[in-house]
Order: sequence, then C-alpha cells, then structure tokens
Amino acid sequence: MTYVGIDIGGMSIKVGFVNKEGKILSSYSLPIIKGEKQEQTIIKLAHTVNEHAKEKGYEILGIGVGCPGAINSSNGTCDYSGNLDWHNLHIAEIIEKECGVKCKITNDANAAILGESTFGIAKNYKNVIMLTLGTGVGGGIYLDGKLFEGNEGKGAEMGHALLEYNGRQCTCGRKGCIEAYCSASALIKDTKIAMENDHSSSMWEYAKNDINNVNGLTAFECSKKGDHTATQVINNYFDYLTAAILSYCNVFRPEAVVLGGGLSNQGDNLINPIRKRMAEQKYGFECTPKVELLKATLGNEAGILGAAALVM
Amino acid sequence: MTYVGIDIGGMSIKVGFVNKEGKILSSYSLPIIKGEKQEQTIIKLAHTVNEHAKEKGYEILGIGVGCPGAINSSNGTCDYSGNLDWHNLHIAEIIEKECGVKCKITNDANAAILGESTFGIAKNYKNVIMLTLGTGVGGGIYLDGKLFEGNEGKGAEMGHALLEYNGRQCTCGRKGCIEAYCSASALIKDTKIAMENDHSSSMWEYAKNDINNVNGLTAFECSKKGDHTATQVINNYFDYLTAAILSYCNVFRPEAVVLGGGLSNQGDNLINPIRKRMAEQKYGFECTPKVELLKATLGNEAGILGAAALVM
Repeated sequence: MTYVGIDIGGMSIKVGFVNKEGKILSSYSLPIIKGEKQEQTIIKLAHTVNEHAKEKGYEILGIGVGCPGAINSSNGTCDYSGNLDWHNLHIAEIIEKECGVKCKITNDANAAILGESTFGIAKNYKNVIMLTLGTGVGGGIYLDGKLFEGNEGKGAEMGHALLEYNGRQCTCGRKGCIEAYCSASALIKDTKIAMENDHSSSMWEYAKNDINNVNGLTAFECSKKGDHTATQVINNYFDYLTAAILSYCNVFRPEAVVLGGGLSNQGDNLINPIRKRMAEQKYGFECTPKVELLKATLGNEAGILGAAALVM
Repeated sequence: MTYVGIDIGGMSIKVGFVNKEGKILSSYSLPIIKGEKQEQTIIKLAHTVNEHAKEKGYEILGIGVGCPGAINSSNGTCDYSGNLDWHNLHIAEIIEKECGVKCKITNDANAAILGESTFGIAKNYKNVIMLTLGTGVGGGIYLDGKLFEGNEGKGAEMGHALLEYNGRQCTCGRKGCIEAYCSASALIKDTKIAMENDHSSSMWEYAKNDINNVNGLTAFECSKKGDHTATQVINNYFDYLTAAILSYCNVFRPEAVVLGGGLSNQGDNLINPIRKRMAEQKYGFECTPKVELLKATLGNEAGILGAAALVM
C-alpha cells in the first residue's frame, strides 16, 4: 500500500514513497538536466520510480505529481513551464505507460494545500484556503474535503485577484493583483523604497549599506529592534495581506486560511498581527464564524505528500 | 414526485410546486405581515403548503427555502434579516415539524444560482459563478455540480471581495468592495456625479431635470442616444465589472459567469462590452480556457426553482 508523490522544482525532482498515513517511507532527488529532451526527463523519472519500488519491495497503487507552470490536470499535461522550458508535455500519460499505474498531476501550489489539508496543519478542516507568500503569491482551494482546481485545473490563482483597481503592475499583465502587494518580492520592493526615503533607518546597516542585500527578512528583523521605518513597512504589508485574506473570507467563508511560502517562516511575527487585524475587522463580515489563520507546517514535504494524496 | 420551492422576499413569500424537470406546476404568494410573530409567519406558511398539496393531490418529497439575510444553512436558521426583522428563526425545523418532510434553507442569492445552474442558462456547466447586480452585488458559487456555501452557509459574498484597497465605503463596513463599484446603487451614484459635472448632458433631460429621478437605466439609455458623458459612465462601469469578473476567473476558472439582478436586464448592452473586455484581457490569464459570460434567464422564477433544487 504505497503511493508515490513527485514534487517537480526548477532544478530537481523530489520523489517520495508514502503510506496511507502520510509517512514518507523513503525518498530521493533527481537533477533536471537542462537541454535534455522533455519526454526523456519524464521517462527517466519513471524508470527510477520502478527501480526504487522494486529494490524496496513496494507495491505502488498510484503516482501523483506536482509541477510548476500551467498544468492541465484534466488531461495530465504540463501545457507550459517557463522555468523548465516544457511545452505540452504529457507527464501523466508517459508515467502511466512506463510504470503501469494511474498517475495524476496538478500544479505545485495545489499539491501544497492538498498536503497541508490531508496530513498537515489543516487536516481537521473541510474548507481551507492557502496563500503561499514567496516570489509570487500562489495558493490553493480545498473545499468540502477535496482539492478544487477549476476548469482544466487552471483556477486557484489566489495571487491574481485584485487588491487595487489599476494599481501596481503585476507579472501576469493585469494591474493591482494581490501578488503585487503581498509577495515577498513586493515586500522587498516596499522595503527598498522606504530605505531610499529614510537613510537613517537601521535597515541600511542590516543590509551592509547595499540595497541589493535587502531581502524578505530585512524589514521584519529591523522592526523587532525598534526601527520605525521598518515597522511602517511591515505594518503596511500586514494591512495588504489582511485585506486579501478578508476578501477570501467573504468569498469562501473557509474554516481556515493557511499561510505558506518563505515569508510564512516569520511564524507568529506574521500570524499574530494578521490575526489581530482579522478579528478587529470581524473576519470580513458581521455574524460570521471565525476563520482560523494557520502557518503551514509540512515545509518541503508538502509537495511530496500532497502529490501522493492526489492518488489516494 | 413534487418538490416545494419557497422564495422569501421583503414583502411576500412565493411558493412553487415543482417537478423533477424544473417545471412549476402551480404557485401562489403570501404577504408578510409586519409585526406578526416571526414563528407564526413560518407556521402559517407551512400550513398553506400542506393545504395546497392536499388540494392538488401532490406528494411532497422535500421543501427548499431561499431567504434574504444571514442564513445558517447548517442548522436551517435565519440568524438575522434586517428587512424582515427576523432573529434566530428556526425556519427548517418549524417547516419539517408542520409538514413532515425534510426542509433545507439557503440565502436568496444561493437559491438563484442553484436555479440557473440546475434549470436555467447555466444548466450545462459544472463550475459557475453568479453575480447579481442590484441594490448590492450578491451572487453564488456552483462548483463540481453543487452549490458551495462556505462555513455555516455564510460564504459566497461575491460583492465583498476588494476591488480597490481603501476605496469607496461599502455597506458592509469595509472600504473598496466590489459592491461599492458594481452595484446598481454605485452606478446611480456615478451617474449623478457625472451629471453634476456636466449640466449639458442629455441625462438631465432624461431625468426631467431632477437628479432624484436618476436610476440604473439613465446612463445606459442616454449612452445609446450618443451622450458622451453617459457613455463615459457606463464604460467606467464596464471596466469595474470586468475587473471583478476577471478576479473571479483567476480564482475559480469557472466555465461560466452568470450575471443576474436588475442591471442584467440590459442584456447585450451589458454582456457584449464585458465579453469584449474579457477577451482583450485574455480571461484574466494567458493559456487558460475561455470563460462564458451569460445573462440569467429564469428571472423571478430562479428563487423558487433554486429553492426546490436544494431538496432534489
């Protein structure tokens, strides 16, 4: 009774063999070789799965894959992944042919929420929204105890609802998306602007007087030490993120919102100020049930566990 | 094989007896008597259902209710309805006791989308978002062939996601909600502002030189006759509404978005300009399936049919 969860990243592919309870029995990682024929990468991946299962004596019941880019979960293809330079790659079909078991794929953000909702911090909730705060804002939708992906698996672009009409330019082409305010990249931009406007801020010292050293931690760390400008930057960030979360509270009225991605490692320094704002603003509406705000707990394992859960 | 759909409004209650195919076999309406004890209103309603069924020889399999206000669909209560002055009214329990069949309730906007998705314009789609453009912006969520209501049935507040951060004051208490830009009330406000800024606009003549006569039709009708200021008002409105719809396209990637409510009676004058903008903006994202934009077709029957569909 073993399931395989495959987490495809920009540089490597992580493969985990997982039991029904969400325990990773064994795992390994494969590098992605740039320039290799895309089908060949998947065929080789499938062969390593077969070999590893044979070696360990696992009986594989299904293989799930989380992949970055535009994924069509209905027909099991990666339509397009810029980082990997993959186009119309029939991942599920190739794996099914080579491994002889059913294979399902979804995008990496969907795999993460499915992992957290099946085995992680959100496992006791039926309706969960996840926002991953990294280079962009990804996320996923878990409703009535199931992953919701939208037509062709192309919904759940949680970073691309509006926060501000005709606002900041977003990478997707629209203006004013949540991603342009709530991603780590947006926080870094806001930190830099605040530093340019306040050369006395201790953030300059933290960044060794080089603005290129600014990262997602800069404002958080300097705020802890009492830097007023840094505190303004993160308070603005909290306000933006709260606004986005409350919109999703009104639309989904989920039982829980889970924050993942790099910035979620701030833990209580991020969660508590947002919880406070959510409560002050009545979870987005009067007379409604409380929405729990939680930090993702599975970290790097969410991708493998969520992918495996696709086929459980 | 008859189902009862009950559509509670601000002034009266409409009751329909519906077959499995969504045909209303017979219907009647009851006035809501102001000042009557709230439980008494529901008991009387239940008795009329029993009498009507007996008279017509219907065998009732279930009773569904659509009700305005804060509805708790999990326990079948109207927690609060300002218009009706109802508080913690156990609608489903009373009806089940008096009629002896199962009863489910939902809010009126959810009933409307369930009607359109089960028997109306959206009956061939599995994933549908509805926006009702009236005094406010209501709506509903129909996913994987089922109504999605959120925790306690208090999600799907489609008018209360942000369009503009810290924007116009919304009735809900937040600032910048979709409702504050896309409701008929918002359009009327924008029409009045544009008229105050342009006393040569033909909208003054249309409104008989009294700004209190402005309604949701004013800008639409005067734009058709070539009034430049009126055209600016509706183009702004189209831009706002497109922005809101594209946010929902990105979040849900539905197969269809249905527009209902008073403003949807503009038909192609509303639908076509929004469709054009959606196509130009690639349905919110590159490489994604087309989202159909449709006008609700069931009109006043949507409430009865959707309520009946709750128990089918």
